[in-house]
Amino acid sequence: MRHDIYDLAILGCGPAGLSAAINATIRNKKVIVIGAELCSPPLHKAQKIDNYLGFPAIKGEDLLDRFMQHAQSMDIEITSNKAGAINEDAGKFSILVGDEIIQSRSIVIATGIPYKPTLPQEEEFLGRGLGYCATCDGPIYRGKDVLLIGHSSEAEPEADFMAEICAKVYYLPLYKDYGAIDSRVEIITSRPAEIIGEDFVEGLKLSDGKTIKVEGLFVLGGETAPDRLIPGLEIEDKHIKVNRRQETNLAGVYAAGDCTGTPYQVAKSVGEGQIAGLNASNYVSGKK
Amino acid sequence: MRHDIYDLAILGCGPAGLSAAINATIRNKKVIVIGAELCSPPLHKAQKIDNYLGFPAIKGEDLLDRFMQHAQSMDIEITSNKAGAINEDAGKFSILVGDEIIQSRSIVIATGIPYKPTLPQEEEFLGRGLGYCATCDGPIYRGKDVLLIGHSSEAEPEADFMAEICAKVYYLPLYKDYGAIDSRVEIITSRPAEIIGEDFVEGLKLSDGKTIKVEGLFVLGGETAPDRLIPGLEIEDKHIKVNRRQETNLAGVYAAGDCTGTPYQVAKSVGEGQIAGLNASNYVSGKK
Repeated sequence: MRHDIYDLAILGCGPAGLSAAINATIRNKKVIVIGAELCSPPLHKAQKIDNYLGFPAIKGEDLLDRFMQHAQSMDIEITSNKAGAINEDAGKFSILVGDEIIQSRSIVIATGIPYKPTLPQEEEFLGRGLGYCATCDGPIYRGKDVLLIGHSSEAEPEADFMAEICAKVYYLPLYKDYGAIDSRVEIITSRPAEIIGEDFVEGLKLSDGKTIKVEGLFVLGGETAPDRLIPGLEIEDKHIKVNRRQETNLAGVYAAGDCTGTPYQVAKSVGEGQIAGLNASNYVSGKK
Repeated sequence: MRHDIYDLAILGCGPAGLSAAINATIRNKKVIVIGAELCSPPLHKAQKIDNYLGFPAIKGEDLLDRFMQHAQSMDIEITSNKAGAINEDAGKFSILVGDEIIQSRSIVIATGIPYKPTLPQEEEFLGRGLGYCATCDGPIYRGKDVLLIGHSSEAEPEADFMAEICAKVYYLPLYKDYGAIDSRVEIITSRPAEIIGEDFVEGLKLSDGKTIKVEGLFVLGGETAPDRLIPGLEIEDKHIKVNRRQETNLAGVYAAGDCTGTPYQVAKSVGEGQIAGLNASNYVSGKK
């Protein structure tokens, strides 16, 4: 961390995030880009992009390299840790990034194509037996049976923890090569199919047709929907609601790119990133 | 003219117009770009652009060249004639371009930074002694004194015509090297300062302090405000009002770039041009 407090914390290192970053940097703002291992996987995979003006017929990967070089030429700070919970207090945002808390005066959300739930009925059962943090909700399930779905090995310690307090713990890894997990945990190798239950979770049906009866179900390490990252953020039709200034419903919080709606295209993202970066800079300047 | 009827007629060949053009062309639409001698004079003059992602530190002129090359690589039809009046009939737009009438199923307005009036009070006196077409309004001023302000030599025939029907005609060229004008016309070499009059035009005050008394005043060959090009187009705060789909208040008419509002920046224009080009393409496909 280079600064005590940043002017802009930008979530996402795809075209929208980097465009916001270069524009705010030119405005002399302190910027941090909170990215991911791979910035914009959909662009990275694109065979040929032909509609970003100025670059006819370029590979997605090469375009992304050019974008990253542009940001690096301006010495912009980029971290590849994912952003966790964000809290606001008196116009100052605190963001959990890995083990660190980063502070910023404004936020630009540029997290790409909206969150796809791991299970079709997640929304419906959220808070009714389904959660995203076993360590947080664990005590509720003391002495009960639970199932944890893990998107990466980072979820394994949560399974170990639950094994100590629950009657029975099932762990369903969505990745290969899972590590050493507490011997009391039963590993499930089938894929999850659907949640069983009326009002509350009663179990999980698997792709092989079997059902595992549990009272608690956790999805760990998947994508986090932006409105869960920032409480109160308004969503419309699965996208973050913004106006033409890229303002969300929350003061100091801007959004740009695929997360704000279709078309999912590079030029749209770069343009919106610019507007968000400039308006967030104006917002911060007005504040100081 | 390559086509009987175009899918998109794009007014303006700056970043927004060319971005709309490449995106609609990729969607297999018939496109014409109605430009000007010089596309985007403000970008052309820019010493260094540093905030169009992918092109760090590029001269405005060079960036514009890259944009034009991209459009040319797709064999997009570009004319450097200015668009005149636009009329709509049964979902088909007719556009006067030079001496030709071009037809199109949709319009994308990308005409850049909004119209600057030649005289400060033009809006106020419009239709009250001030007009933009002497040939059209001429008969009203038969036997009266009028003054014509010409932005280019194209205005000279209108001065000659007015000389035949008016008591006295003054011609004030805003360019050098005016041609042979009817001998009854008095040439004014000072600059215009302000319109004199209460409710109606009574005269024009010049930069040298003199006032010329006339009942009719014409500004010829200047920029045309978009809402005068297309009747009924909604303007908000001097810019064309659009939603996040770049739709104007008129079906089939889209707008993108500086003409829709600040920031006046390349990335914003390219992004909006893309959205306008794609949505106009969808509109046309839905129609056919």
